[in-house]
Amino acid sequence: MSQADAQFDNVSVETRANVYHDGKVTSRVVKFADGSHKTLGIMLPGEYTFGTEAAELMEITAGSLEVQLPGSDEWLHIEGGQSFDVPANASFKLKVHSLVDYCCSYFK
Amino acid sequence: MSQADAQFDNVSVETRANVYHDGKVTSRVVKFADGSHKTLGIMLPGEYTFGTEAAELMEITAGSLEVQLPGSDEWLHIEGGQSFDVPANASFKLKVHSLVDYCCSYFK
Repeated sequence: MSQADAQFDNVSVETRANVYHDGKVTSRVVKFADGSHKTLGIMLPGEYTFGTEAAELMEITAGSLEVQLPGSDEWLHIEGGQSFDVPANASFKLKVHSLVDYCCSYFK
Repeated sequence: MSQADAQFDNVSVETRANVYHDGKVTSRVVKFADGSHKTLGIMLPGEYTFGTEAAELMEITAGSLEVQLPGSDEWLHIEGGQSFDVPANASFKLKVHSLVDYCCSYFK
């Protein structure tokens, strides 16, 4: 499913949020029947570094940011409706310019 | 279900967040098979006034706040694990002291 879908059906949602960076980044875990999960999250404006364990697909539902992907010096501008991939066991940097609503998928 | 439950099962989740107060308050809609819905939300520290349409049960999963309920001059201190009810068609005030993770249920 992409972020263009209005909702995820037949899922479980954890009631307790994940909180990062003093609450400027929060997310909620959505579990699917096939055993996979995604997180739906909010990032307030700021600069963040994140690490991955699994490979990730970050779909930006709304907002704007720049991302510096692992091994790159370039900052890519990403807006709502766009997405980017991050490999496993890597770190990436974000500059969030306006509140970002995102969906992150994880791949093993 | 109460906020003590680890997760909501067999639900639908809207992929787009609700954003209030310049992003200091955000929530996501969770829809249940019986047609009811709840919101899972985050409130960053600050002072807020909210209005209700339906009656609401606010269950605080984590964090601390004070609430002034409709028709009251009193500020009630509420911590994670506690809850409060708000009648329909009313307004209430909140002072959020530390990041609040909440579940709001709506009653017709």
